[in-house]
Amino acid sequence: ATTFRASEHQHIRYNPLQDEWVLVSAHRMKRPWQGQVEPPLLTTVPRHDPHNPLCPGATRANGEVNPYYDGTFVFDNDFPALQPDAPNPGPSDHPLFQAEAARGVCKVMCFHPWSDVTLPLMSVPEIRTVIDAWASVTEELGARYPWVQIFENKGAMMGCSNPHPHCQVWASSFLPDIAQREERTQRAYQSQRGEPLLMEYGHQELLRKERLVLTSEHWLVLVPFWAVWPYQTLLLPRRHVRRLPELTPAERDDLASIMKKLLTKYDNLFETSFPYSMGWHGAPMGSDAGANWDHWQLHAHYYPPLLRSATIRKFMVGYEMLAQAQRDLTPEQAAERLRTLPEVHYRLGQK
Amino acid sequence: ATTFRASEHQHIRYNPLQDEWVLVSAHRMKRPWQGQVEPPLLTTVPRHDPHNPLCPGATRANGEVNPYYDGTFVFDNDFPALQPDAPNPGPSDHPLFQAEAARGVCKVMCFHPWSDVTLPLMSVPEIRTVIDAWASVTEELGARYPWVQIFENKGAMMGCSNPHPHCQVWASSFLPDIAQREERTQRAYQSQRGEPLLMEYGHQELLRKERLVLTSEHWLVLVPFWAVWPYQTLLLPRRHVRRLPELTPAERDDLASIMKKLLTKYDNLFETSFPYSMGWHGAPMGSDAGANWDHWQLHAHYYPPLLRSATIRKFMVGYEMLAQAQRDLTPEQAAERLRTLPEVHYRLGQK
Ligand SMILES: O=P(O)(O)O[C@H]1O[C@H](CO)[C@@H](O)[C@H](O)[C@H]1O
Ligand SMILES: O=P(O)(O)O[C@H]1O[C@H](CO)[C@@H](O)[C@H](O)[C@H]1O
Repeated sequence: ATTFRASEHQHIRYNPLQDEWVLVSAHRMKRPWQGQVEPPLLTTVPRHDPHNPLCPGATRANGEVNPYYDGTFVFDNDFPALQPDAPNPGPSDHPLFQAEAARGVCKVMCFHPWSDVTLPLMSVPEIRTVIDAWASVTEELGARYPWVQIFENKGAMMGCSNPHPHCQVWASSFLPDIAQREERTQRAYQSQRGEPLLMEYGHQELLRKERLVLTSEHWLVLVPFWAVWPYQTLLLPRRHVRRLPELTPAERDDLASIMKKLLTKYDNLFETSFPYSMGWHGAPMGSDAGANWDHWQLHAHYYPPLLRSATIRKFMVGYEMLAQAQRDLTPEQAAERLRTLPEVHYRLGQK
Repeated sequence: ATTFRASEHQHIRYNPLQDEWVLVSAHRMKRPWQGQVEPPLLTTVPRHDPHNPLCPGATRANGEVNPYYDGTFVFDNDFPALQPDAPNPGPSDHPLFQAEAARGVCKVMCFHPWSDVTLPLMSVPEIRTVIDAWASVTEELGARYPWVQIFENKGAMMGCSNPHPHCQVWASSFLPDIAQREERTQRAYQSQRGEPLLMEYGHQELLRKERLVLTSEHWLVLVPFWAVWPYQTLLLPRRHVRRLPELTPAERDDLASIMKKLLTKYDNLFETSFPYSMGWHGAPMGSDAGANWDHWQLHAHYYPPLLRSATIRKFMVGYEMLAQAQRDLTPEQAAERLRTLPEVHYRLGQK
């Protein structure tokens, strides 16, 4: 019988955090690509555009004028998917027709006053300011809502409609689907094995090494064993930390530095401003914040779509939407590629 | 207190078939769109291109020459994600690192010898030929594999790399993730309520009417109560049918006719060749085909990405990837819009 080699032989892998399987078919990287190629990036974004509602001094859709902010700036999304006061749909009359109330708030957070920078091009102290703002907004909204979802859609390919560096924060009266899954799996793991799933996972990856991308005093970045997107990564603190506000000043500084390194590697991979969606997951808050959430470990997921070049992405369509996620290179291959990339940004190297 | 109105007040809805929630925020359709606009469609596809590997008489990547087929044509995918003989990864050494063997086959099915037609532009008898081919391939591969996934990625936006009308068939030695979910939910519903989930669901939608798009003697098309994609639909037989091969000749003719109507409405919605991923789900087969699968009801899902026009799509990014699916118009609004569209294709009307 042939010896199994992950880079040559298709197999399925289990994601114990989200209770899902992925089909890994690495031999498929060899196929030619004749499908859609993404439009090239806007090469020049003006540093300041008075008509861009995210810029300092600009007027937004609701008539409010932004301050001349010089760090981060948080404001209410003018077109929120969640509002604080929606009425309740009432009891459902049939188990196949269940609707429930949803309340919340949607905020936008600008990372920097300039439109022509991105996180990897910002300085470590500037990124640290963003981390502090993430911690504050989590604390503030977590006082009222059980789930505070911080996420960044970067790049037009990821549906981002504004080039100004920013993220969004959607807080909700309900635990969203993926939060529920992570709650269920982490709780079950802790009760069966007596330790948090992601603490043990990080520990194992440090021993196994083959999926590590970056390590620092307080943090790890790795391509998870069950990654779905070609260059997906998971960012984990080494210490058991349940939520962003619990991070110490030293952990925050170190996070700023490892984020800058990771995002620089991402940009260097295809010499482009690397698109992705990323977001933070931490223990639920709201009125139950005081309960025992020790099975939770804070983490960030990075989901970047690019597969082969700055213009060729992985499409999660057909089989993926109807049957199961499928990937074309192994997580170990992706980690190795990311590991070997320089930590100096390709645009700064050229200067 | 304000009276709840689904088209004005955000709420969450439950998908009992896939055990998932969706956030419905219909008021959000009002926001302006400044993000990515899709490239316009290739307007002219040549009817025959000797260099297109899907065309009659063309030579494929493996050197084989296609016959001059005049109906459907099925062949092995030259770059398959699943192969029949991959070795087993062996036992896992840790519960967080689980891999399993995956075996299968990937086939491509051309719908028609011409590259410049799509299903809605084909005749009802031509579509009937496709349905017969779907039933045969299910029967053939289902003899060896527990799951046979038929799916069509239509349009460059859906990662389709060849304009020739075709679908794919991936059969696997494992039940894919979404099949496992549908198996679990349908089995539980049957055991709790004594009837198949989707039989009761179709029955309820016929009574409620507000989400119906098309009905015929043997079939229903509706926008499910829990739809995620803007114009997502579910196609269901009225009779309890577990798998495609069980369809009677009359049900197949009627299916060809209702598919032509649905896909014509889709093309008419934004006067474009409407992109989507679609696929069939039926009871598992393989060596357990003879077990009791009466809780399954055959169905097809259509997942089209367009939201506002031929070039403005819904992006399932950030919040959707990290927290929960979110939609911008209600399923009832989508159904009404589809219901009122003509059943004559806009390109034929112009002739
Ligand atoms: O097989 P194709 O059409 O080349 O590829 C397309 O469909 C596959 C199955 O859904 C996906 O895995 C690919 O990402 C997509 O580009
Ligand atoms: O809020 P934005 O940036 O306008 O919109 C983007 O992010 C949202 C949250 O992930 C998505 O629902 C939208 O489909 C996407 O275009």
